[in-house]
Amino acid sequence: MTNYAASGVDLDEAVSAKKRIAAAARSTFTKAVVTDVGLFGGCFALGEEPTSDVLVASTDGVGTKLLLGVQLGMVENLGRDLVHHCINDILMCGARPLFFLDYLAFGKLDANVAAAVADGMAAACREHGVALIGGETAEMPGLYEPGHFDLAGTIVGIVTRNRIIDGRDVRAGDVLVGLASDGLHTNGYSLARQVFSSEVANKSALQTRLQDGQTLAEALLRPHRCYLKPLNAILDHYGLHAMSHITGGGIEENTQRVLVPGLSLDIDWSSWQRPDLFERIQQQGNISETEMRRVFNLGVGAIAIVAADAAEDIVERLNDAGERAWMMGQVR
Amino acid sequence: MTNYAASGVDLDEAVSAKKRIAAAARSTFTKAVVTDVGLFGGCFALGEEPTSDVLVASTDGVGTKLLLGVQLGMVENLGRDLVHHCINDILMCGARPLFFLDYLAFGKLDANVAAAVADGMAAACREHGVALIGGETAEMPGLYEPGHFDLAGTIVGIVTRNRIIDGRDVRAGDVLVGLASDGLHTNGYSLARQVFSSEVANKSALQTRLQDGQTLAEALLRPHRCYLKPLNAILDHYGLHAMSHITGGGIEENTQRVLVPGLSLDIDWSSWQRPDLFERIQQQGNISETEMRRVFNLGVGAIAIVAADAAEDIVERLNDAGERAWMMGQVR
Repeated sequence: MTNYAASGVDLDEAVSAKKRIAAAARSTFTKAVVTDVGLFGGCFALGEEPTSDVLVASTDGVGTKLLLGVQLGMVENLGRDLVHHCINDILMCGARPLFFLDYLAFGKLDANVAAAVADGMAAACREHGVALIGGETAEMPGLYEPGHFDLAGTIVGIVTRNRIIDGRDVRAGDVLVGLASDGLHTNGYSLARQVFSSEVANKSALQTRLQDGQTLAEALLRPHRCYLKPLNAILDHYGLHAMSHITGGGIEENTQRVLVPGLSLDIDWSSWQRPDLFERIQQQGNISETEMRRVFNLGVGAIAIVAADAAEDIVERLNDAGERAWMMGQVR
Repeated sequence: MTNYAASGVDLDEAVSAKKRIAAAARSTFTKAVVTDVGLFGGCFALGEEPTSDVLVASTDGVGTKLLLGVQLGMVENLGRDLVHHCINDILMCGARPLFFLDYLAFGKLDANVAAAVADGMAAACREHGVALIGGETAEMPGLYEPGHFDLAGTIVGIVTRNRIIDGRDVRAGDVLVGLASDGLHTNGYSLARQVFSSEVANKSALQTRLQDGQTLAEALLRPHRCYLKPLNAILDHYGLHAMSHITGGGIEENTQRVLVPGLSLDIDWSSWQRPDLFERIQQQGNISETEMRRVFNLGVGAIAIVAADAAEDIVERLNDAGERAWMMGQVR
């Protein structure tokens, strides 16, 4: 089941909502629902054989990256963000995506904005062989301020029942292979926008260059990276034991939740250089390390948990395929 | 494909958005996408045989009925509204629902509201054998006012490829069988809230009783009726030529769009008594008949288009099953 964790700051409220919504959801489960709440996608089996098809689905939004896109007049990438985010989510269960539907809600409909977002979604869908088969464009006066809108999407993919990746094969000693992210992806923007509020108000300050040569604006609006092609290639050759998509909750929370009880993570936080963008957010916002780890991906977009003897090969293959991948810890 | 028509008042903007989004969507279509833009659900085939499974999906929201629910402190029914709306949408293509995912977005998360909405969704899902397998609960400070939230959902169902109902069997002379709605369902609330703004501000005025004995508040927040059970029973015995779900756009627009070019509708507007709620909206708001027909369902929640010689039997069966159904026109 998709992560029901809310990305807000009142953790008690989020935990309460999560528990109560999960209970409501479980009350609807039939035997076709083959995984519990907490995975990156909800799994619905079309048959009971080991080789039956299982549909894997996930709904997500782009969070308050949307407000930054609106403020800077750059909304096309938001469509791409959303599709990539959703593809990654169901990929973590081993599923390849089939189709996508979007929800786009305005106070007052703006056809140019709607078309730009749709073009971004369609481009990302074409690139990954996903069909955009539907959606809803709603106009809700009184709910959204002029110029504001919300955007969410749902993806449905497919995996063979005996090839669902749900963490049950993870063993102590397995290695965590990290895949580099492209910036914040779609999480942590409520905090990042606070930290950079004066830069956003004074747009020229967003043209400051980071160490890697990107401007601050480019780095903040860089699209969510999609891991479908590199991880699919690995899936064809190796048995991955689990995968985690590093979204709200950060590296630890998103990876811990794919482990069976009794296992824990030993992450080597010094195994990669944290990108400049995260360093600037931490310094400028005077944010604790604990909070940084809870809110941001810190440069790691996805993690594959693999058998120790396969880890080196997998890292090499991923790097050959153009990803930046490295061993970043192990399971205990 | 799901209706991309926006439910707003600026029709040119809506038409422009609809066309441009539809073009973006079509650019992603593969041969697995077996119906074009414009139906109530997007159809994705899992195989090429006539007996292959086709997945039918739709995303929708509850529109500004949500704001009325918030103002009156009654949000549980919104979850039910959403699930019923989505089930009806894919049912129009002949699909039975499998699973559902929701999107719930707050400015500041309220666990009680989230749980109430989830409980409503779960109750409707259990009642119709649908699994609530996922969703996203987002907290987006700056996008929603305190106390406000948005709610959308996506349903996925299944139909055999050679049993998709897409309007291709509709012939001149076919009869329209109307099924009574339970009030406004989830459309026309932006207009209805304007008309009743003083009643909503002065809550005691919402206790006024309508002719049918309901209070105005009850009538306005009555859940969207679900037609799964009665129409499924008909589908097992008769070949329905098309079905339309009367949502934003009204009776004509939603029914015209399931006809092939060259056919038109001859609706007998005097064949049913328009419920008191619609009469009051029209009188109090001084709304033209054209606008009423474009915005509201006017007492008709769904229409089945059937062979003339089967119409009488179908009406009888539906009435025996507890629906209010009648012959309301024909295809020309």
